[in-house]
Amino acid sequence: MKNKIGFIGLGNMGIHMANNLIKAGYHLQVYNRTEAKILELDQASVTVCKTPAEAATGVPILISMLSQDEVLRESTVGAEGILKTFPANAVHISMSTISPDTAEKLAKLHQQHGSKYIASPVFGRPEAAEAKKLFICISGDKDAKEIATPVLENLGQRIVDFGDKVGGANVVKVAGNFMILASLEIMAEAFTLAEKNGLDRVQVAEFFGSTIFNAPIYQNYGKLIANKQYEPVGFKASLGYKDARLAVKLAQLSQTPMPAATLAHDRLLSAVAKGWGDRDWVEGVGRGVSEDAGV
Amino acid sequence: MKNKIGFIGLGNMGIHMANNLIKAGYHLQVYNRTEAKILELDQASVTVCKTPAEAATGVPILISMLSQDEVLRESTVGAEGILKTFPANAVHISMSTISPDTAEKLAKLHQQHGSKYIASPVFGRPEAAEAKKLFICISGDKDAKEIATPVLENLGQRIVDFGDKVGGANVVKVAGNFMILASLEIMAEAFTLAEKNGLDRVQVAEFFGSTIFNAPIYQNYGKLIANKQYEPVGFKASLGYKDARLAVKLAQLSQTPMPAATLAHDRLLSAVAKGWGDRDWVEGVGRGVSEDAGV
Amino acid sequence: MKNKIGFIGLGNMGIHMANNLIKAGYHLQVYNRTEAKILELDQASVTVCKTPAEAATGVPILISMLSQDEVLRESTVGAEGILKTFPANAVHISMSTISPDTAEKLAKLHQQHGSKYIASPVFGRPEAAEAKKLFICISGDKDAKEIATPVLENLGQRIVDFGDKVGGANVVKVAGNFMILASLEIMAEAFTLAEKNGLDRVQVAEFFGSTIFNAPIYQNYGKLIANKQYEPVGFKASLGYKDARLAVKLAQLSQTPMPAATLAHDRLLSAVAKGWGDRDWVEGVGRGVSEDAGV
Amino acid sequence: MKNKIGFIGLGNMGIHMANNLIKAGYHLQVYNRTEAKILELDQASVTVCKTPAEAATGVPILISMLSQDEVLRESTVGAEGILKTFPANAVHISMSTISPDTAEKLAKLHQQHGSKYIASPVFGRPEAAEAKKLFICISGDKDAKEIATPVLENLGQRIVDFGDKVGGANVVKVAGNFMILASLEIMAEAFTLAEKNGLDRVQVAEFFGSTIFNAPIYQNYGKLIANKQYEPVGFKASLGYKDARLAVKLAQLSQTPMPAATLAHDRLLSAVAKGWGDRDWVEGVGRGVSEDAGV
Repeated sequence: MKNKIGFIGLGNMGIHMANNLIKAGYHLQVYNRTEAKILELDQASVTVCKTPAEAATGVPILISMLSQDEVLRESTVGAEGILKTFPANAVHISMSTISPDTAEKLAKLHQQHGSKYIASPVFGRPEAAEAKKLFICISGDKDAKEIATPVLENLGQRIVDFGDKVGGANVVKVAGNFMILASLEIMAEAFTLAEKNGLDRVQVAEFFGSTIFNAPIYQNYGKLIANKQYEPVGFKASLGYKDARLAVKLAQLSQTPMPAATLAHDRLLSAVAKGWGDRDWVEGVGRGVSEDAGV
Repeated sequence: MKNKIGFIGLGNMGIHMANNLIKAGYHLQVYNRTEAKILELDQASVTVCKTPAEAATGVPILISMLSQDEVLRESTVGAEGILKTFPANAVHISMSTISPDTAEKLAKLHQQHGSKYIASPVFGRPEAAEAKKLFICISGDKDAKEIATPVLENLGQRIVDFGDKVGGANVVKVAGNFMILASLEIMAEAFTLAEKNGLDRVQVAEFFGSTIFNAPIYQNYGKLIANKQYEPVGFKASLGYKDARLAVKLAQLSQTPMPAATLAHDRLLSAVAKGWGDRDWVEGVGRGVSEDAGV
Repeated sequence: MKNKIGFIGLGNMGIHMANNLIKAGYHLQVYNRTEAKILELDQASVTVCKTPAEAATGVPILISMLSQDEVLRESTVGAEGILKTFPANAVHISMSTISPDTAEKLAKLHQQHGSKYIASPVFGRPEAAEAKKLFICISGDKDAKEIATPVLENLGQRIVDFGDKVGGANVVKVAGNFMILASLEIMAEAFTLAEKNGLDRVQVAEFFGSTIFNAPIYQNYGKLIANKQYEPVGFKASLGYKDARLAVKLAQLSQTPMPAATLAHDRLLSAVAKGWGDRDWVEGVGRGVSEDAGV
Repeated sequence: MKNKIGFIGLGNMGIHMANNLIKAGYHLQVYNRTEAKILELDQASVTVCKTPAEAATGVPILISMLSQDEVLRESTVGAEGILKTFPANAVHISMSTISPDTAEKLAKLHQQHGSKYIASPVFGRPEAAEAKKLFICISGDKDAKEIATPVLENLGQRIVDFGDKVGGANVVKVAGNFMILASLEIMAEAFTLAEKNGLDRVQVAEFFGSTIFNAPIYQNYGKLIANKQYEPVGFKASLGYKDARLAVKLAQLSQTPMPAATLAHDRLLSAVAKGWGDRDWVEGVGRGVSEDAGV
């Protein structure tokens, strides 16, 4: 029988990841803020936990997939946090999209505690999480990465190691999210230019998505942007904005002027200011560009 | 035997296109500013011409592939231009990257003259032109497009029709060039962010190019940007800047605010101002971003 | 008795300038597209003209104050333009806000014609024109400037010479208009920041306008922006946009990256795209910034 | 005899302010990180303190003028901070340039402690501080402001009340600093445009500074920018950048898109990245714009 694993965070992504671990034969000690969500998993393979500390009790590995730096920090060092019970030498695989410097701080706290923390953010949407098609970036302590790898193989199609500095994978994740957001902006501008010059946005999007820009980002998002199809909400503008802030913050801390990042940041900040925070981030960008152009 | 075709402009792209037409059995009446260049073609299949007018004499179809609006205009309506000799009902296939409004004006002049003009700009680099792998966008008069299509099939892997308004294909070309240029900016910013945070630019580029951004643009240019490999010069910064101006101009004329386009425009304007106009446009963007970040 | 002067263009500014010249004792030969406007002047001192050519007949000096490059060019070299009748050695004082390269071209045409052209754009609103408080920038041929100066002294409070290159004063005018427009953007952003943080926009504007930013631009426009007082329309957004384009064009031609100028340009381009072209440019900027912030 | 006052922070500004209070008859209990600096004050009127707590002992009023949020926070709530000894009902006049939310937090801590905290940031350079010409913005508890006013009257030429919400004055200060920084950018761009078009930067700066932009900001900084006179260092680029970050942060927190602020922020971030952090912020902007234009 496989080891027990602690698991914290059953959001849109986490629920599929937990499910895949169960299918792979793991037993999970699960904590989720909304406990009812845990019932969606195979109950024979889970132990319902009331706190992060409970989920971390007696496991050699714990996976967390949370929405932001603050939540992860509280779940780790709070009064009922992971480090209250996490065993010596156990490995915390942190898969959330967070700031590299939060990762560095948490890794240090784990080290002082005698346990380990590695960064392991992912690229892919919920469908990819469900289909074990995520791209997983890892960084941090070598031994911990070795321990984590067989577990992560049940979650994604590829695992790429970005070195021993624990924040490395987080930098890649922040950079990638910036690239995606900026691509939305580019497409929205290009398609609006086409529209205002009498062309069919959708045909233009299909042309680029099937020729020089035939990558998933341009194909999938291109379709949504071209059709101004903003529902259902796949990823909230407020969360996209949070990621844009991570990029701007990282640019500040590492002294890297990124004008395209500040531009994209301002686009989503405006979306949030206009009250579109709960709508899809594609609407935040696409509708923003359209309205600026009077269409 | 196939028809004779007029051909004007043996630049990096035009030379391969002319060659492919010859291989397909056409005889070409060729004009090029630097006449010596014509000697690189199979002489049995070409007639060397001294002027655009000479190249346009007696042919049902003429192809032009020139570097900018001014040159095309002069070659068409100048004292020794195409329209001096172009037969009634003949079709001018204009493959240059030019402004849509120049295309509209030239089409009108052809119409008044009794001949036809269609837009037919392409996406692809010289290697693609050589391998008949270009993506060809066409727009304009329906009958003329039908006449042009069998000829164009010898030049590219796909022909997409963007409607009867002659400037349509030019809009797509301008939009696409903007998308490429903006993608260079995005990559340069993302890779520099990675570099300044202690990561390997090349590894980051390879990761994105083989996962969520696995399109030629991101793979090929990503490699060059990540490696800061700016030679040999494939496409001059000054020409890239010319294209950026076309995008800004089209945005102005069609009242489409495009902040990412003005940003990218300013990046290449700065490259030209710094004296890098004859270097590769990838250097214009990549080195610009690096220097701003002090690396 | 003083010389006759030709005068073309009785817009918001021109009407006051013509009036001041009449008060100073000049007799004007006036052309205006809308002839009725000429009736507002003292009829004893004007000769109503049907064409620019008529206004230019037999005068040693002609003043033009028109809305844009195209109109000035047509008025000068058109079939019934100034140069049809302008006497040898006569001086054309061109006070319109136009591109320096248009100025250079027109100066050359005058030279070939045997007459002279100097640039003489002004800073100041209609009230300043009425009160002879304009700031006048001049450039071009030395002798012509000497001839023009006593006339211009009836129109403004100060005349500053920007050299013998005819476009010089136009560069200053374009630069100054950019500075004003960018200042509107800055104020709109600052006051909106204050508003969204619970402060009184008007108090903040008054504070800055009476302390570190106690210049007319900040005082007068600051009041309008702070109060969101967008009527009556003093200067149309479409005209402000035209000026922004002149700045962007000059930046392109002289290879000067101006990110604040492209930003300001995009702000007014968006205003025009949204259909606010006939509203005040202060609304174009102020309302644009407010709407982006959701207020 | 007047009350004793606690005083913390003898930087470029603080030293003059302390001096003016002494001249006005106050006795100061002074703490400064570099104790030697205290010797520059009239020793008969100062008590040298080893800690902020010591400076806060037994005084009804304490003034702090520190370089950043972190330092002020530590000086207030640290182990040897102000709140260790500050008397009940005493008033802390916080004159540093800090984030409004830091002000709110500190005010709450004072309230819990039984004392009071008001914001009182200033506009003006060291010369203005010396000449009692500062413009002082105040906000916070009404009674505390009344107590503070007679003291502040010895430091500036004008005191403006921005309401009872304690962060109000800090918002005005952050907004004002943004306006100044953005004005530097505007001038640098305009003067560089003039230069690249063959004009004399200095003449252009003088023209605007004595006409439509005749405010101290444009006159004083305009001269420095036009002359590219970057020494002596009056205000470090790294500090200017810190202020730009405050603006961007406040824009984020209050959901106010400020593209001119992010642009100005990126300009100084680049200056710091290039290693110019210890040079004047005017160089950071001016040289940045010049180099982008290749001059």
